[in-house]
Amino acid sequence: MGSDCPGVAIRWPRGAQMQEAPLSDSNRIADPRLRDRIMDAEAAAARIENGATIGMSGFTGSGYPKAVPLALARRIEAEHAAGRPFQVRIWTGASTGPELDGALAKAGGIEYRLPYNSDPVAREKINAGEMDYVDLHLSQVAPMARQGFLGPLDTAVIEVSGITEDGALIPSSSMGNNKTWLEQARQVILEVNRWQSPALDGMHDIYYGTALPPHRKPIPLVHPDDRIGQRHFRCDPDKIVAVVETDAPDRNAPFSPPDAVAHAIAGHLLDFFAHEVKQGRLPPELLPLQSGVGNVTNAVMLGLIEAPFENLTAYTEVVQDGMLDLMDAGKLRFASATALSLSPEKAQWFNTQADRFRDKLILRPQEISNHPELIRRLGCLAMNGLIEADIYGSVNSTHIMGSRIQNGIGGSGDFARNAYVSIFMSPSVAKGGKISTIVPKVSHTDHIGQDVQVLVTEQGLADLRGLDPKRRAQKIIGTCAHPDFRPALQDYYDRARRTSFGMHAPCLPDEALSWHTRYIQTGSMRP
Amino acid sequence: MGSDCPGVAIRWPRGAQMQEAPLSDSNRIADPRLRDRIMDAEAAAARIENGATIGMSGFTGSGYPKAVPLALARRIEAEHAAGRPFQVRIWTGASTGPELDGALAKAGGIEYRLPYNSDPVAREKINAGEMDYVDLHLSQVAPMARQGFLGPLDTAVIEVSGITEDGALIPSSSMGNNKTWLEQARQVILEVNRWQSPALDGMHDIYYGTALPPHRKPIPLVHPDDRIGQRHFRCDPDKIVAVVETDAPDRNAPFSPPDAVAHAIAGHLLDFFAHEVKQGRLPPELLPLQSGVGNVTNAVMLGLIEAPFENLTAYTEVVQDGMLDLMDAGKLRFASATALSLSPEKAQWFNTQADRFRDKLILRPQEISNHPELIRRLGCLAMNGLIEADIYGSVNSTHIMGSRIQNGIGGSGDFARNAYVSIFMSPSVAKGGKISTIVPKVSHTDHIGQDVQVLVTEQGLADLRGLDPKRRAQKIIGTCAHPDFRPALQDYYDRARRTSFGMHAPCLPDEALSWHTRYIQTGSMRP
Repeated sequence: MGSDCPGVAIRWPRGAQMQEAPLSDSNRIADPRLRDRIMDAEAAAARIENGATIGMSGFTGSGYPKAVPLALARRIEAEHAAGRPFQVRIWTGASTGPELDGALAKAGGIEYRLPYNSDPVAREKINAGEMDYVDLHLSQVAPMARQGFLGPLDTAVIEVSGITEDGALIPSSSMGNNKTWLEQARQVILEVNRWQSPALDGMHDIYYGTALPPHRKPIPLVHPDDRIGQRHFRCDPDKIVAVVETDAPDRNAPFSPPDAVAHAIAGHLLDFFAHEVKQGRLPPELLPLQSGVGNVTNAVMLGLIEAPFENLTAYTEVVQDGMLDLMDAGKLRFASATALSLSPEKAQWFNTQADRFRDKLILRPQEISNHPELIRRLGCLAMNGLIEADIYGSVNSTHIMGSRIQNGIGGSGDFARNAYVSIFMSPSVAKGGKISTIVPKVSHTDHIGQDVQVLVTEQGLADLRGLDPKRRAQKIIGTCAHPDFRPALQDYYDRARRTSFGMHAPCLPDEALSWHTRYIQTGSMRP
Repeated sequence: MGSDCPGVAIRWPRGAQMQEAPLSDSNRIADPRLRDRIMDAEAAAARIENGATIGMSGFTGSGYPKAVPLALARRIEAEHAAGRPFQVRIWTGASTGPELDGALAKAGGIEYRLPYNSDPVAREKINAGEMDYVDLHLSQVAPMARQGFLGPLDTAVIEVSGITEDGALIPSSSMGNNKTWLEQARQVILEVNRWQSPALDGMHDIYYGTALPPHRKPIPLVHPDDRIGQRHFRCDPDKIVAVVETDAPDRNAPFSPPDAVAHAIAGHLLDFFAHEVKQGRLPPELLPLQSGVGNVTNAVMLGLIEAPFENLTAYTEVVQDGMLDLMDAGKLRFASATALSLSPEKAQWFNTQADRFRDKLILRPQEISNHPELIRRLGCLAMNGLIEADIYGSVNSTHIMGSRIQNGIGGSGDFARNAYVSIFMSPSVAKGGKISTIVPKVSHTDHIGQDVQVLVTEQGLADLRGLDPKRRAQKIIGTCAHPDFRPALQDYYDRARRTSFGMHAPCLPDEALSWHTRYIQTGSMRP
């Protein structure tokens, strides 16, 4: 570090960034140098070659390019129809939308995909063994791309909400790895999406201080609302080969209203928070919340509206509907994330209200939103969903029956290992009661017992902190498992305690995965 | 952070700390206030009550208290002989020695143990289900103790190498969690061990800037040789109830000289490093090395003596024999660790030579040596051993046949997830060829595929970075597996590719753990 003092976070006065004139809606492409590069999506897609590696914007269904990928998919279909091979390698922030992963996968155009997918068409291709998919910790994608072993990045295709007169790029509804793709790509294609609110300008904070070792410095963020970077991306204008104008909504799934199960899970968790505050182990305003994507975590946010906690903050990957409601209720003071992930209705509403949130929201690159250094420093309360957990509290977040990937690990590993309290939650059964979420042994491990400190189902909450494996097992079976499966779990565990090879974490390898085998053979885990 | 600039690391001129007079060997207890608290180990052990929670010093067989635990074990045996219950709860840095874990376990005196053990007597108790053992990430132990859910700490029993006139404590050959135990314990018992070299004084760097959230700040360390703290522990003298004088060696296992297998593993790894330097993906002096405990990692250190890398550094948990040899050969410029873990011969030698290492070594608290923030910032090259790995590159570091714990996860999770390159290595077979280190599925997961980037056996090195599961499997089977087991692994994988539930990571749950079942039933994994 020598004599340098690492950059100090700037805490802007609330609303300070609003004083600058927001982007004019009538001129989203203000840089005159780029005017002659405006073209349609077909012309832009023609710039992409067979075998190219493309870094796309997009994180949890927001801020992804919507026209060029569709045009590219049409081009790929035409090439395939003409008997010519055409496939590309796609890197993103996280999940995108049907116009990107869906269309390209349907065209058979994706050879390789990282680091996260939730598109159903792409998922089918992956699980049919027809697409290489590399599931990564989201904090590590940008550093890995710079590290070099993934190979060069040919093209970046990035959605922005506008371009300033001097060529700075105003981000849109997600940040993801856009900064890194813009830096690393040989050529850049921009989509300027008029649908994105001009009021987004000023909500972003892009930290340009990351580096490869041995040149890394402390990241000077110590509160969720610290600003440590700049509001616009920089990009060498000579690299920008195409600018495509769009006016298309982010297409995210709607949320179901929380059902009784989600309410029960949220209730257990809020009771736990209240208990920890009472014990003096959490401050009354809690600690920065991280909330995974999904209906259950959304229900927790809604539950917090009625809960006795004030001045909450969030340091998380995505802002979902529930978090905006929690802000609107005056309970959530501030949220830092890398993306908005709103239902179609909420996104529409947000675009008319965005000004109100300009001093309450910051979107950051995912290497910052998910950085272990920052998650551990801030002491996040990490709340993530799961596919299954076992009696010792290992969690499978990704692979159904050990082999079929659902989405990916996303940022759950970044948060769970570094959280102040790492919480996983899920209904205790799935598929109408045919699958028990609690199993003798997980069929795939994403989160080891050390990183799973609290496990919650609608049945109850198991605080596993400081417990050895046998006490964890007894607590998980007794508290979290569905009553229909509890006797079989207890029976397995009792027999393991009699005949296991070792008695530290009793296990019967010949039976440990039999529940999964039964499901594969009969369609149900029930005996 | 407000207007504060986070403390800047001080880079001491080499050897600057040597200018202060080292501890006088004739007076290890210089503080007159503590003279009347000098007593024998029995009297000190009498201060410990049944049911107490005790924070002990000790990390990988060094710097652990050697007299009081033995006296406590005798007291426990006497109590048990008299029909009275007596058990304690033991927290340490990591593993200790036979005088601590061995003696107390033999006496049946340990009710609860965290966060790491390698003592064979304690291991038997744990695997007989007679001792609760909680295996934790070593970086997280101190913060968890402060967090409060583990309960209060009654007594700290800490080995030091001396006490200064003003009551500061001069650490001994390991740091572990001593700072935290001294802070948290209601009462403190010190062992002052005259066997430890007086020249240790000045090799320690104790950072007092950690806190619980929301008060955490960036840790101002950016090079392995930065000094960010102070050389002595502080401790309220009123809490010190006993001072026991000892003169006893750290008792560590000797190293075997590297065999052909260890040489082959080291050779593959050094070739990989050379290749990465050639590709421009590593600097010529590499990046700070982390090296797990064991003969194979020790062989890598010895291999580096002949390798074409200069000015190496280490940021690691423990300094083993090989690292001192690498320093002596002029190849390793500097090492930061939390403990020395030397063979008896090397420890004896070190004690006569310690002065020569005073500008080449820093020992730090384990929450700093293993801190994710620092490991990721420095970009460590993490090299750890394993018990088994599966065809997709998940690693089991802890549980034999899924149930019997060997030692514990230690710091491998802290390093593997945050390393610049995470490497795991092991011979491809164990137990005279009866166990294959590469299995269809690990029986317990400590390190998920995302955290296992390079896998090495004497058969070869598999660079798994950026590969999807199926390419990982083909590479691991073809490169790392022992030829005796390769056909059976390939057969399993081929059949899984035909009939698996999903084809992302093909798996046959009814057969995945059958190699472990066969070993349990027949004593061999061979069909």
